[in-house]
Amino acid sequence: MKTKYLIIVVALLALACSLASAYDPSPLQDFCVAVKDLASALFVNGKFFKDPKLALDNDFFFSGLNVLRDTLNPLGSNLIAVNVDNLVGLNNLGISLARVDFAPYGLIPPHIHPCGTRFLIVLEGTLYIGFVTSNGDGNLLFTKMLYPEDVFIFPIGLIHFQLNVGKTNAVTFVGLSSQNPGVITIANAVFGFDPKINLDVLAKAF
Amino acid sequence: MKTKYLIIVVALLALACSLASAYDPSPLQDFCVAVKDLASALFVNGKFFKDPKLALDNDFFFSGLNVLRDTLNPLGSNLIAVNVDNLVGLNNLGISLARVDFAPYGLIPPHIHPCGTRFLIVLEGTLYIGFVTSNGDGNLLFTKMLYPEDVFIFPIGLIHFQLNVGKTNAVTFVGLSSQNPGVITIANAVFGFDPKINLDVLAKAF
Amino acid sequence: MKTKYLIIVVALLALACSLASAYDPSPLQDFCVAVKDLASALFVNGKFFKDPKLALDNDFFFSGLNVLRDTLNPLGSNLIAVNVDNLVGLNNLGISLARVDFAPYGLIPPHIHPCGTRFLIVLEGTLYIGFVTSNGDGNLLFTKMLYPEDVFIFPIGLIHFQLNVGKTNAVTFVGLSSQNPGVITIANAVFGFDPKINLDVLAKAF
Amino acid sequence: MKTKYLIIVVALLALACSLASAYDPSPLQDFCVAVKDLASALFVNGKFFKDPKLALDNDFFFSGLNVLRDTLNPLGSNLIAVNVDNLVGLNNLGISLARVDFAPYGLIPPHIHPCGTRFLIVLEGTLYIGFVTSNGDGNLLFTKMLYPEDVFIFPIGLIHFQLNVGKTNAVTFVGLSSQNPGVITIANAVFGFDPKINLDVLAKAF
Amino acid sequence: MKTKYLIIVVALLALACSLASAYDPSPLQDFCVAVKDLASALFVNGKFFKDPKLALDNDFFFSGLNVLRDTLNPLGSNLIAVNVDNLVGLNNLGISLARVDFAPYGLIPPHIHPCGTRFLIVLEGTLYIGFVTSNGDGNLLFTKMLYPEDVFIFPIGLIHFQLNVGKTNAVTFVGLSSQNPGVITIANAVFGFDPKINLDVLAKAF
Amino acid sequence: MKTKYLIIVVALLALACSLASAYDPSPLQDFCVAVKDLASALFVNGKFFKDPKLALDNDFFFSGLNVLRDTLNPLGSNLIAVNVDNLVGLNNLGISLARVDFAPYGLIPPHIHPCGTRFLIVLEGTLYIGFVTSNGDGNLLFTKMLYPEDVFIFPIGLIHFQLNVGKTNAVTFVGLSSQNPGVITIANAVFGFDPKINLDVLAKAF
Repeated sequence: MKTKYLIIVVALLALACSLASAYDPSPLQDFCVAVKDLASALFVNGKFFKDPKLALDNDFFFSGLNVLRDTLNPLGSNLIAVNVDNLVGLNNLGISLARVDFAPYGLIPPHIHPCGTRFLIVLEGTLYIGFVTSNGDGNLLFTKMLYPEDVFIFPIGLIHFQLNVGKTNAVTFVGLSSQNPGVITIANAVFGFDPKINLDVLAKAF
Repeated sequence: MKTKYLIIVVALLALACSLASAYDPSPLQDFCVAVKDLASALFVNGKFFKDPKLALDNDFFFSGLNVLRDTLNPLGSNLIAVNVDNLVGLNNLGISLARVDFAPYGLIPPHIHPCGTRFLIVLEGTLYIGFVTSNGDGNLLFTKMLYPEDVFIFPIGLIHFQLNVGKTNAVTFVGLSSQNPGVITIANAVFGFDPKINLDVLAKAF
Repeated sequence: MKTKYLIIVVALLALACSLASAYDPSPLQDFCVAVKDLASALFVNGKFFKDPKLALDNDFFFSGLNVLRDTLNPLGSNLIAVNVDNLVGLNNLGISLARVDFAPYGLIPPHIHPCGTRFLIVLEGTLYIGFVTSNGDGNLLFTKMLYPEDVFIFPIGLIHFQLNVGKTNAVTFVGLSSQNPGVITIANAVFGFDPKINLDVLAKAF
Repeated sequence: MKTKYLIIVVALLALACSLASAYDPSPLQDFCVAVKDLASALFVNGKFFKDPKLALDNDFFFSGLNVLRDTLNPLGSNLIAVNVDNLVGLNNLGISLARVDFAPYGLIPPHIHPCGTRFLIVLEGTLYIGFVTSNGDGNLLFTKMLYPEDVFIFPIGLIHFQLNVGKTNAVTFVGLSSQNPGVITIANAVFGFDPKINLDVLAKAF
Repeated sequence: MKTKYLIIVVALLALACSLASAYDPSPLQDFCVAVKDLASALFVNGKFFKDPKLALDNDFFFSGLNVLRDTLNPLGSNLIAVNVDNLVGLNNLGISLARVDFAPYGLIPPHIHPCGTRFLIVLEGTLYIGFVTSNGDGNLLFTKMLYPEDVFIFPIGLIHFQLNVGKTNAVTFVGLSSQNPGVITIANAVFGFDPKINLDVLAKAF
Repeated sequence: MKTKYLIIVVALLALACSLASAYDPSPLQDFCVAVKDLASALFVNGKFFKDPKLALDNDFFFSGLNVLRDTLNPLGSNLIAVNVDNLVGLNNLGISLARVDFAPYGLIPPHIHPCGTRFLIVLEGTLYIGFVTSNGDGNLLFTKMLYPEDVFIFPIGLIHFQLNVGKTNAVTFVGLSSQNPGVITIANAVFGFDPKINLDVLAKAF
């Protein structure tokens, strides 16, 4: 009984604490197409961006995901990201996407997207994927074998990886909850650069 | 020289003004798997949700996007949304997805997602798609003909539609920048219900 | 009993999920008065805007809401918005207002503010007003007859309208929870422009 | 030429830095009408609030702003706030309003709304109003004499006051950029309570 | 029993209202080191700031907190703030810090940080500190006597003060939940400037 | 001349784009002291938390940072975090702190705080510290030797570490821009658990 009340109490703190921001931030224009030259830029009422009247259908369009990426590299994987650099209309819309190709046994090594959750849809092939929770949750490992059109979620900020365990190429589509989720590849960040992290640090840590 | 400083100044303004909130909100746990019964719920330090140690690989997994939806309806289209209801691990991760099927000439009629930008990837078929800007931008129409693996962006809060203009079925994958972007189908909202909006209003408006 | 626990469980997710952002974003200066010329602009500690020491009482002041708007137009309504364009001190304060005038039987047709909730206070006249919920809530219609000094709320992102059903002019004051809530007038966006949305789309949708 | 690019660069910085959060937070339902009893509450897919199908037109309606408030008190002012307590539909919509009445020479003393900007519209009377900037901006005083239908803005978090300098009652309408902007009346907070702030503190500070 | 249900109902509103924004806003780069001249500025993919490849270890470093501040002033206190002005790497990181020195009986007078919560750690001396709640919470006074390495929290937006009640100097370290929390010193803001707030206002208020 | 306007334009863009959210989210009460039992909880107007009138001075107070932590462990380091668990008044205030002790050559191994920037103040000893940027910034290593009262910043989401390179103990105080910044210790997350990440993944990645 007491426990139940504890739970309720805690729950209600949530109300007091959560209502404030749920609806507030809001856009100040329909979109902010990135401009690369001033000729197509406009200044209206204190806003400056590509004149919507000059915006083109193609500013919101990208073609080329159908091209197979070259996976002839040590990891046997490659990706094409679709973001504001190649799809200027994405600017400010809080989402981006990618196609990832895997050679047989190709790997996307353990990495983190500090600023975005990622969903993955398998188009072809068989992938072994997983992520690891933080210290607070005991560094648990969640894994799954994925087949065509399966979907998997990698929560924001957690270390995750994908391995093609099939004898054929694998292809996936990815959606990310940020226009620039960022990437930290663990191996590169910890061991990858020169000068290296102090060896005493690495020796004691690993 | 002065100009250069001005420019810097402006740059710094951007930081000063924009960065207040850019980094702030942050999760308080790795994920919040939705729980449907108390047996798998945990209460620790004022937080209460599915015990991460009881979370299952399947909580982050969805299978079934490969099934063709029934499009035998007046609009000739159908969709399956993948969200917290059928993929509990998506809870609170700010993203969702869907598969949309179109019969020949099938239509997703003009509608708005008040809370999410949508990207669309064509898997099969040929789609004529478009969106309309707000009054402030002159209610401009942006349209495009899309072929397999083309990508198109529908900015948050703008009226948009998709029409299958091919003689075959069409299939698309969709990503949305919200776990629940909401939908307002214009025809249903304005004309669709009973009692109708006052006819004087409709007559004068349309 | 079980139900009660379900409720509690759900409730407690809220705590875990809501505490993070409630307090975070915060301003980096008292105000950011918009500047139209560089003479009155200042650069201090990485901030660039109208020098607060040069800010004028009038930068926070607007006069002229008392002027009757011309309502000799097909809809029989007109408004004056008070925003950063005519009240520069409003810049960055997340709120704006307006006066709306209605001729007898004047109409503000069905429209959406994608980024702001609107409250309305009737000063004169009798208005029939309403809004429609999204598909998820069944496109329900909420309406009310309003008399002087009545207040009504139009939630963010929902289609709403106002009709003067009196034989006299009507006047309202409006407050909006954004410095630029945006407007999409349904009739204009769907039918109003040229070239029109593909007729197949409109025919099938309406 | 270089300069032009720099400018663009800066513009894009503004986007890159500011837009991360501009679009993100979004509602997960049309509205959250506060419920006072379980009979009218609904639990669907982990969300629980007044069933929108049971919501009433009156949940978004408030009547009574037309009643003159009693100003027979030492300050000669009084207000009625319209918020979630008397207008349940306002819940979570990030805005609220009030009517403030002033007797001749009535005062709303120096106070702060820590969480909301306030706009004021004068309906009747003549008010002398002002606010003071923070230390960083030199504690500057901004004041104005306001007449019927004048509008004035009090930026969030700054000390402000209103004084009726006319021989008649004054009436104002107020809009606030929060559903609960909070109030700290300086005199009450610093001198008003018992036990008082340590006198050494007050003596040294004032 | 009924009460319990009320509580639950309220609690659950929290879920519906809070999930939206908890994870969304996210950074678009590792850091935005403020630049003072263009030579070290870089433009990459629409971002413009100090080239991370030119960033220096010292951009994230500050030395000098160990220097005793001069407290020979009427209040007998002094502080050094560590913020983006003297630690450029702090730009955009949503946090700042300070060292505060107190002469015997030195005072930091009642003030508000409109945009940041403050924690205080005592290094040396004995401090009498306190804060006052808002009107809604009855302007309650919370005070404490602090000794070396004690910690105290001053919630965002509340009036607070510190007084050295020891016969020796006192030293504190402070952390603030904003890169620029702002300061409004009540005495300065209300009585401190010239021209003063209208005396009728002050007389009636205090 | 044109240039100047461009600059202004850009400045205003910064405002227009960044200020949408800068001011919005705001607290709905002075503080939310976490409650552990219902006796001290209050339910008013749909808000429910520890009755501010029952809040104690000690709810905002923590004592015990002066105690040396036991560093007799393989890493030779230990910390005490001050957060809502041992300082209930911190609930929802977006900040936390810690004391970290290092034995000679003690190490805090490479880790990430996914949700908070960390500042560090050295009280005693000599530390070699560093962080690594993300892939997008080339995985650059930033390091510094820190002496008493030096300050260093570790930006949110980047891998960082601290090593005591002195022959004596070291002590640091830490401030974090979140009430729960989270921790992912790389070595534990990648190699630390059982069952291990698939060896093919580790072999290919490291």
